[in-house]
Amino acid sequence: MYDGLKGFRDFYPAEMGPRREVIDTLEATAKRYGFREIGTPAMERTEMYVDKSGEEIVEELYAFEDKGDREVSLTPELTPTVARMVVAKQQELSKPIKWVSTRPFWRYEQVQQGRFREFYQTNVDIFGSAEPEADAEVLAFAADAMTNLGLTTEEFEFRVSHRDILGGLLEAFDADVDTREAIRAVDKSEKIDDDEYHDLLYEAGLSYDQAAEFDALLDTDEESLDELIEFAGTDRVEAAVTNLQNVLDVAEDFGAREYCTLSLETARGLDYYTGVVFECFDATGEVSRSVFGGGRYDDLIESFGGQPTPAVGVAPGLAPLSLLLQRAGVWPDEGFTTDYYVLQVGDTREVAAEITRELRERGHVVETDLSDRSFGGQLDYADSVDAETVVIVGEQDLEDDAVTVKDMRSGDQQQVPLAEFPGDHDRPTFDDF
Amino acid sequence: MYDGLKGFRDFYPAEMGPRREVIDTLEATAKRYGFREIGTPAMERTEMYVDKSGEEIVEELYAFEDKGDREVSLTPELTPTVARMVVAKQQELSKPIKWVSTRPFWRYEQVQQGRFREFYQTNVDIFGSAEPEADAEVLAFAADAMTNLGLTTEEFEFRVSHRDILGGLLEAFDADVDTREAIRAVDKSEKIDDDEYHDLLYEAGLSYDQAAEFDALLDTDEESLDELIEFAGTDRVEAAVTNLQNVLDVAEDFGAREYCTLSLETARGLDYYTGVVFECFDATGEVSRSVFGGGRYDDLIESFGGQPTPAVGVAPGLAPLSLLLQRAGVWPDEGFTTDYYVLQVGDTREVAAEITRELRERGHVVETDLSDRSFGGQLDYADSVDAETVVIVGEQDLEDDAVTVKDMRSGDQQQVPLAEFPGDHDRPTFDDF
Repeated sequence: MYDGLKGFRDFYPAEMGPRREVIDTLEATAKRYGFREIGTPAMERTEMYVDKSGEEIVEELYAFEDKGDREVSLTPELTPTVARMVVAKQQELSKPIKWVSTRPFWRYEQVQQGRFREFYQTNVDIFGSAEPEADAEVLAFAADAMTNLGLTTEEFEFRVSHRDILGGLLEAFDADVDTREAIRAVDKSEKIDDDEYHDLLYEAGLSYDQAAEFDALLDTDEESLDELIEFAGTDRVEAAVTNLQNVLDVAEDFGAREYCTLSLETARGLDYYTGVVFECFDATGEVSRSVFGGGRYDDLIESFGGQPTPAVGVAPGLAPLSLLLQRAGVWPDEGFTTDYYVLQVGDTREVAAEITRELRERGHVVETDLSDRSFGGQLDYADSVDAETVVIVGEQDLEDDAVTVKDMRSGDQQQVPLAEFPGDHDRPTFDDF
Repeated sequence: MYDGLKGFRDFYPAEMGPRREVIDTLEATAKRYGFREIGTPAMERTEMYVDKSGEEIVEELYAFEDKGDREVSLTPELTPTVARMVVAKQQELSKPIKWVSTRPFWRYEQVQQGRFREFYQTNVDIFGSAEPEADAEVLAFAADAMTNLGLTTEEFEFRVSHRDILGGLLEAFDADVDTREAIRAVDKSEKIDDDEYHDLLYEAGLSYDQAAEFDALLDTDEESLDELIEFAGTDRVEAAVTNLQNVLDVAEDFGAREYCTLSLETARGLDYYTGVVFECFDATGEVSRSVFGGGRYDDLIESFGGQPTPAVGVAPGLAPLSLLLQRAGVWPDEGFTTDYYVLQVGDTREVAAEITRELRERGHVVETDLSDRSFGGQLDYADSVDAETVVIVGEQDLEDDAVTVKDMRSGDQQQVPLAEFPGDHDRPTFDDF
């Protein structure tokens, strides 16, 4: 007997059914927005990740040397791959480019609740628009997806921030501050205590007084955003505040505004974000970690060797999303149903097969005996696959040119002429006769 | 600019659309048969493959040592993984177990037409039935999937064989023959010349005369299968011939018989097959390689430490299947359409957003301006995404409480009262007004 690997999961039908339903909802929502599906490889050259994030990223990757001596890695996220793809066909693709895909990713990290080494995400990205409409479309898609999954405004919230507000404020304190390090500190601030947080800001180049002042500024509420412009006195912060307000205005028109809360402490961990960023949280706080996040990354395509191309995206992950959906009581049921079981009694396979085929051609889920089972054995199996209707094809019935139709909910059954089952009926059940 | 890896492909929407349609057809067909979707990991312990196929298999695997010093491999096929999963929950799962899944696999091999290092398969398996009905159901699923993809009996055939007929005949020549090696030789026979083929049979333990006689026996046609029983004079061959005939009889009832041709030279390369095996070929011969294959593997679950559990399955691969579908002229169109583009002229975003949302709520694919484009720029974009209807939301129209509905095929357009678009219409187009 073999074991699976730690952090890699097997999904049996009872678990896969609900997951498929959630993925289908995310993808169907994205398709209504005009996002087109792409297919992407599981492996890339390791240098693509090292160039972007530094040599230390390799520790988190499934990185190895392939048989052609290439340094390769299983993809830990989709963004670098789609950036590579955009660069490769930049001229041919009409803008905005709107892509969606669902697939696994891999990171060698500590396994914990809702976090695995193999994990699934639905990635949604827009390339080629710097307008607030694009940020708002990503927010609106995410909000629609969540409500389509059965969540309400009481269940989730998007904490919205802006990288350029954070960067601009830091710069206003001290032009030499390491904004990348400081923003990483902000990203960690909710998970560490204040002293540790201020230490990190100090290491990034702020004095302790500045760190405290910066921390206080991040508490600014929506109505007071203009105070940040005043404090910084720079075009950068003014433009960022205006941009954030514009995004929220468009989100209002597209129905996503009610889910958005200003939260400047939300920074997002990844370095490549440049503008509006957001994270989805459980509004009740019961699921304490961020459910998923997204934002604008306008510089990545250029850093990959492409023409400057603004970009914004979001990537709901199935595992943390399932924690929220389960907490809210809207994780889908197993969804394991069978429309018909065609039960064979005696030497009736030919007729049973004909009925089975006709029902399948009409698009129904139909099973019949594969195991040479008794009447009772077949009925037990029909029950185990939650069959709605059992069609009993027996030798005696067939002498009357009939079959017996049994409703599995009520247990009622009746004889039905063979010519009428399925006959002209699209989806015949007990009640049709 | 980064390159993707050799043998790994990027699918842009124009290529992904048809692939998705093919996958959807395969999966929808499987679901009608009551196959339930499972989700499986991309990685397994390397020993699982080495135990089954020997140390040399590692050369074909993406095998490496992970950061926890585990010898791991990207999954080169699904069968060992599903066998592991069956063993892990053998008691709980009701039989027959019927599973389906579509996902990528990885093998480090020579890249050629229709063969890549990353490739997609839809795996369909039945565990727990040794009856011919199970083999026939797999054949019927495969035949239905092919016809649902638009192929006819002129386009494809299933070459059906039986491992126990091959093994039984070999054994009848010489009890000491290495049947595994000999069957591998049969599997290669169409790709090598006769001398080489007979050399391989000789190496497996047949004399050259026996090799020639064996080769001739494999030409036996359906009507003469009894001659094989007579030749061998063993229960093993008799049981195998009867089993093959039974499978074909059930396949007749389930509509798959017309696609099946007896072809004892078809052996399938993998060692774990035990009973009926088959390969799908282009009936015109234009695509010369096998499109996909399947068969019975009754011993694998036990060899994985489980209770003896008969099994049969098939795994259409997307790349070779696409060669056949393209050859037959039934590869799906791009399938890239947009139901509506909502065009904004002037400061009309609020109304345009409202219309966009209402149409999306009705399930349609709707895009609107994300790039602050001119009237002409938006119309060009609507054209590029093949929008069927453009809804022009202009300031002047709005003064009349109206929008303009433009049919993109004909170019016709007319003013429609705002209250009626979409109003009560489920899917309003130019012709509705």
